Amino acid sequence: MTIAKKISSSMTQSSMIRKMFEEGILLKKKYGADKVYDFSLGNPNVEQPDKFKIELVKLAKEIIPLKHGYTPNAGYPETRKAIADKIGKTTGLKISANHIVMSCGAGGALNVIFKALLDPGDEVIVLNPFFVEYPFYIENYGGVVRYARTKEDFSLDIDAIARAINRKTKAIIINSPNNPTGKVYSKKNIADLAKLLREKGRAYKRAIYLISDEPYAEIVFDGVVVPSVLKAYANSIVAYSYSKTLSLPGERIGYIAVNPKINESDNLINALILCTRILGFVHAPALMQRIVARLQNVTIDVKIYQKKRDMLCAGLAKAGYKFEKPQGAFYLFVKSPIPDDVKFVKRLLKRNILAVPGSGFGGPGYFRIAYCVDDATIINSMQGFAEAINECR
Amino acid sequence: MTIAKKISSSMTQSSMIRKMFEEGILLKKKYGADKVYDFSLGNPNVEQPDKFKIELVKLAKEIIPLKHGYTPNAGYPETRKAIADKIGKTTGLKISANHIVMSCGAGGALNVIFKALLDPGDEVIVLNPFFVEYPFYIENYGGVVRYARTKEDFSLDIDAIARAINRKTKAIIINSPNNPTGKVYSKKNIADLAKLLREKGRAYKRAIYLISDEPYAEIVFDGVVVPSVLKAYANSIVAYSYSKTLSLPGERIGYIAVNPKINESDNLINALILCTRILGFVHAPALMQRIVARLQNVTIDVKIYQKKRDMLCAGLAKAGYKFEKPQGAFYLFVKSPIPDDVKFVKRLLKRNILAVPGSGFGGPGYFRIAYCVDDATIINSMQGFAEAINECR
Repeated sequence: MTIAKKISSSMTQSSMIRKMFEEGILLKKKYGADKVYDFSLGNPNVEQPDKFKIELVKLAKEIIPLKHGYTPNAGYPETRKAIADKIGKTTGLKISANHIVMSCGAGGALNVIFKALLDPGDEVIVLNPFFVEYPFYIENYGGVVRYARTKEDFSLDIDAIARAINRKTKAIIINSPNNPTGKVYSKKNIADLAKLLREKGRAYKRAIYLISDEPYAEIVFDGVVVPSVLKAYANSIVAYSYSKTLSLPGERIGYIAVNPKINESDNLINALILCTRILGFVHAPALMQRIVARLQNVTIDVKIYQKKRDMLCAGLAKAGYKFEKPQGAFYLFVKSPIPDDVKFVKRLLKRNILAVPGSGFGGPGYFRIAYCVDDATIINSMQGFAEAINECR
Repeated sequence: MTIAKKISSSMTQSSMIRKMFEEGILLKKKYGADKVYDFSLGNPNVEQPDKFKIELVKLAKEIIPLKHGYTPNAGYPETRKAIADKIGKTTGLKISANHIVMSCGAGGALNVIFKALLDPGDEVIVLNPFFVEYPFYIENYGGVVRYARTKEDFSLDIDAIARAINRKTKAIIINSPNNPTGKVYSKKNIADLAKLLREKGRAYKRAIYLISDEPYAEIVFDGVVVPSVLKAYANSIVAYSYSKTLSLPGERIGYIAVNPKINESDNLINALILCTRILGFVHAPALMQRIVARLQNVTIDVKIYQKKRDMLCAGLAKAGYKFEKPQGAFYLFVKSPIPDDVKFVKRLLKRNILAVPGSGFGGPGYFRIAYCVDDATIINSMQGFAEAINECR
């Protein structure tokens, strides 16, 4: 066989989602893009902030020696410092440029983290429902995924996590605000998790790392604040991306922030830098490193997403759908009116509505709506949503 | 232990080069950067072409829907088409956008290729001296490196390669123009390799893939042409980068070109796309994808490197150094006047000259000079080079 056996089996597994995606393309060709309500992808449609656009043009014109040259593997010192300063300010932690490693988005960051941490057979706890790429990222480095469910309201189920921890547990990955649920874990919830990890770490005489995937950290509504895991737990690592904060997912820019109090801090940071290099990222894109250094306090207009959430929630509630109102990100995880979520998503598809079955996220019985779309898409889809749920009665 | 055992051992191994690099930083602080002759890094110092700078400003200002959004995992169709058209034109092959997968430079491309191809235990042939990252890239995916030496003039030693092939051989990686030697393999040399791989493939009843790492393809001198491996051998894959062609190593943009006649072509291309995604690259940076689509026939001024090569070769020959005059890239691989290349590089260091011992490239008894530096660096280093060789007499 030409390709690796593991990759071959991954291709077979992921073919259902691809099939759905391809059906979407066909629908758009047949009916026109404005007659298809595509809630399948988390590709932000909100404009970049004006400051970003201005800096990009400025930077494009600027004369800087070796402007597009290799940067240090960890990234430009000034970019790392700008990020550390901001984290220090918001958390009160003593964190320096040395604790930051620039990355190709959060996806790149997580691969580098798992490559640096995992020996084959090490277990990583993933919470259902989860971002679909986590199992790949962990298994890439011989890690073993151990699943634990969240509670009915998608908050952390500390008892379920406790049951999933054993002597092979190396890390747990959390994502708040969450994809696919939009949940933001409370300060108390994070504190309870930290307490559990400290207890279990002592019991098994090894550090259990808390990896916090935070691309949606700034996309929060109704004044909710995302509690800092760096403050809550020493053995914590943050994977961050500007993909959503600045609507830049195509440019692949993010970072890893390592808790200054983490176990063997220098050694771990050097390992992250080495892994950035040898995985072929080499370093994060240079131009974007310079831009984000200048835009540390700039975000897209979050109110736009909040308005979309409110429109969508009001419309779906009226039609009779059940869901937890999300506090962040731009996803809604809706209870499927029938137990078979794949079947229900097909019913939506018949109304030109593209959503993703919860089964794909380890959350069967639900479906995910990514509402980073035009208001018109939300408004015009409502009739189809109503018809689909009525069909189930 | 915090970090993975394998990463820990890699960190110990690569500490010698890092020590050298850190000594260089100290020297520059002590004597001033202009008094230190740094030939250690392949970071192009030649300006980007004017057309690149113009396009970058234009693109920064352009209004395009979802300009910085996610691109397809394989890259923008128009970028892939532009590349396929160019390859088709120069090689006469029937190659389409479907055979191109955009990547984060050649480093990203090679990781994606090895991830897609290698099952644990599969062997990949690497030719000494080699680019230092190849063993990492192969071992990342459980591959086993099998070394074969090149000839005295750094051309392919077909007999040595034949001896290295066995039933576990999955691929061979070549790099022409070569880092660290500057060698360009001749058409005959490539044809002989192709013949051998076909024969061995038949004998072992499995395809042996020829992976050609070609970031220096356009950096060639004296009218030399790099023969196309795609034309020479069906089971071939090219990893390309714009890092050197457009002096853009910091922006991480390149591509994978799959031979249209390759074994199980569709399956392999889908595997490459999946691996781009799950390794966390997701896709190549969006802005740079758009730019390179518009600059398919643009390169930096190669004559600048040719002039540097000529200056350097003339100076070193006069001082009594022995080397093969390179036909491409911007490296010179010089015979160490004493057998211990690490010791000799330390003697250069005493004259504020930074070079890299050949041992680091699997080529002991040599040292590498990266001459992508100012002319002044070459000129002013000559006295130190002369002193260092005289000390050996």
